[in-house]
Amino acid sequence: MISDKMKNLVANNSVIREMFEEGKRLASIYGKENVYDFSLGNPSVPTPEKVNQTIIDIVKNEDSLKVHGYMSNAGFEEVRETISTSINKKFGTNFSKENIIMVVGAASGLNIIFKSILNPGDEVITFAPYFMEYNNYVSGYDGKIISISPDTKTFQPNLEEFKEKITSKTKAVLINTPNNPTGVIYSEETLIAIAEILENKQKEFGHEIFLISDEPYRELVYDDNEVPYVSKYYKNTFIVYSYSKSLSLPGERIGYVVVSNEMEDSENIITALTISNRIIGSVNAPSLMQLVIMNCLDEKVDISIYDKNRSLLYDSLTNYGFECIKPQGAFYLFVKTPIDDDKEFCKKAKEFNLLFVPGSSFGCPGYVRISYCVDTNMLKNSLQAFEKLSKVYFS
Amino acid sequence: MISDKMKNLVANNSVIREMFEEGKRLASIYGKENVYDFSLGNPSVPTPEKVNQTIIDIVKNEDSLKVHGYMSNAGFEEVRETISTSINKKFGTNFSKENIIMVVGAASGLNIIFKSILNPGDEVITFAPYFMEYNNYVSGYDGKIISISPDTKTFQPNLEEFKEKITSKTKAVLINTPNNPTGVIYSEETLIAIAEILENKQKEFGHEIFLISDEPYRELVYDDNEVPYVSKYYKNTFIVYSYSKSLSLPGERIGYVVVSNEMEDSENIITALTISNRIIGSVNAPSLMQLVIMNCLDEKVDISIYDKNRSLLYDSLTNYGFECIKPQGAFYLFVKTPIDDDKEFCKKAKEFNLLFVPGSSFGCPGYVRISYCVDTNMLKNSLQAFEKLSKVYFS
Repeated sequence: MISDKMKNLVANNSVIREMFEEGKRLASIYGKENVYDFSLGNPSVPTPEKVNQTIIDIVKNEDSLKVHGYMSNAGFEEVRETISTSINKKFGTNFSKENIIMVVGAASGLNIIFKSILNPGDEVITFAPYFMEYNNYVSGYDGKIISISPDTKTFQPNLEEFKEKITSKTKAVLINTPNNPTGVIYSEETLIAIAEILENKQKEFGHEIFLISDEPYRELVYDDNEVPYVSKYYKNTFIVYSYSKSLSLPGERIGYVVVSNEMEDSENIITALTISNRIIGSVNAPSLMQLVIMNCLDEKVDISIYDKNRSLLYDSLTNYGFECIKPQGAFYLFVKTPIDDDKEFCKKAKEFNLLFVPGSSFGCPGYVRISYCVDTNMLKNSLQAFEKLSKVYFS
Repeated sequence: MISDKMKNLVANNSVIREMFEEGKRLASIYGKENVYDFSLGNPSVPTPEKVNQTIIDIVKNEDSLKVHGYMSNAGFEEVRETISTSINKKFGTNFSKENIIMVVGAASGLNIIFKSILNPGDEVITFAPYFMEYNNYVSGYDGKIISISPDTKTFQPNLEEFKEKITSKTKAVLINTPNNPTGVIYSEETLIAIAEILENKQKEFGHEIFLISDEPYRELVYDDNEVPYVSKYYKNTFIVYSYSKSLSLPGERIGYVVVSNEMEDSENIITALTISNRIIGSVNAPSLMQLVIMNCLDEKVDISIYDKNRSLLYDSLTNYGFECIKPQGAFYLFVKTPIDDDKEFCKKAKEFNLLFVPGSSFGCPGYVRISYCVDTNMLKNSLQAFEKLSKVYFS
């Protein structure tokens, strides 16, 4: 009774559920405080006080029919205007409200882009390790993800293989920076190189190739690192942004898509995205939250907490003998497993009540993703377990 | 650069935009208060005070990480539990939280159902007049809408034609009661007849046929009318519910899907819907609003205002010579046009600053939809324009 496309997904779901059930099982045996769950990407730092205060102010003072009502499928005009002005100020771009489409989170933003641009058989290139859900977003519109193997030295994109794998079927390239799961920021040099390759391939194949930058972690950046603004390097760019991480609002489903004003045929593309937003059933991004974020564009969550976790975990793990690069952004550590089989390593870790996601789940076996968006005390308590785990391999 | 599927939609969009621009043009010439816009289905009665108070209470008193955080893709367990209990109490059903999936409004609910059940070429039967967006929801998953022509005497479904059009390709039947645009409630007799036909056809073709009931107008019902609960009559039923109209929250995108506990293979179907919710990018229904509606299940908007508009408009229009049936629910009047060409009639109405949607846009030419979810004073002021319009045809 289920569609053929969904059958595999339903069958595989039991595997994911088992992982989840395993965490609950461990908690029931050892107590929740003794299970160290590093498997989720759920923010652990609360939204800024101003966000909650703004919700209250709007609900108290503004017209209910407007606050909770329909607006254009692209979002409230004043919200899009304010966001475009804010981006222009921060990054020296030249967007207007027309370039902004409010969406139900980044996942929805990617869906409406793929719905708008993909014909069956079209290819979307992305760089491993990558968020596996991309496969579902693309295959939902009968496209195909082409994965480029990782450069595990730097986790910058492997540009040689990238060049080779662009074909006449390539419709888009999807990047994610700062990256889930590596925490790497794609450098300006990388973006310039990608842009140059794409410009040449556009000429070679005689059609446009879109660059889609998925940026939910843009504001979660440590030290003096900066995240270059992708539309400056390449005209046919979409930027997909979400407030899930930057304002710790993942459950509220609020974000936007930027369609570069320099994109070919941008007016029709914007119309297509707006219609897609409507007909995939989102209709519009949640109305109250649109008005809230308009008033909170300069707010940030307290990333010093993530930063502290990052240093603590990175220093401890490298000290215990594990290998990984220090993440520049996001809230994940991508650690090389001491044995080739990352799933086997996750199993072993579970014996010490440590839960990770295997790198295989990001198209990059031989690694694990350890999320440090957790309570710092839990992290401190877990270190003895990490140490014990290390001794299995490095003693 | 746009996908082939989207090209037509983008081309047709300019027609819709023209209609919208026309309204703005008229307002700029005659003043906004002298343009009588009956074209939109946007609630005109504000959300109950308790809804706004509940938003404030939750944001003030509950843990931000929970209120704005991720939860299961199907929604918060306590929200689903509370909703299932409330439905059971009202309708004598026997649902548990597993039967409820929280969604980003009814439009999204329909999308995840079609994504979960449709294979390319599958047919979904619906009854004219119907909400044209259904075509896009179904074709998005390569299915095809089969429309049954209207019984314009009662606007109950035409069951003879229905029986004939069920084929081996029929995967689902989609009904909308109370109906947009007619305001008719499908009677218990109708539902029993539909169920019986489907039971027989299931046996004849040897596979299940789903009944999908789209019910955003369930609470907007006048006089002593009742809306029968569809799952009581047929096992393989989905109910799609939204708070857009019942609590005047259309912009917030909050609703749920009920999967009947008696449905064949319901466990796998529920899993498929939950995965679809995630991968079409909704991920989950907005978190704060889930918690809000859990505390407002017995709230209702003040429908006496719609009721007043309904009577005023119905009595006046029939008095002027127009023909229509008195709506039992929703907030639309579906009026027979005095000439066959409903688009031409809309053009004529515009000369009197009256804006309607032609019945052709609902697969039912020769009628217009007049939305009475408007300010009662505007409606009163518009009556002289309706009278003038009537005199063009009936004098």
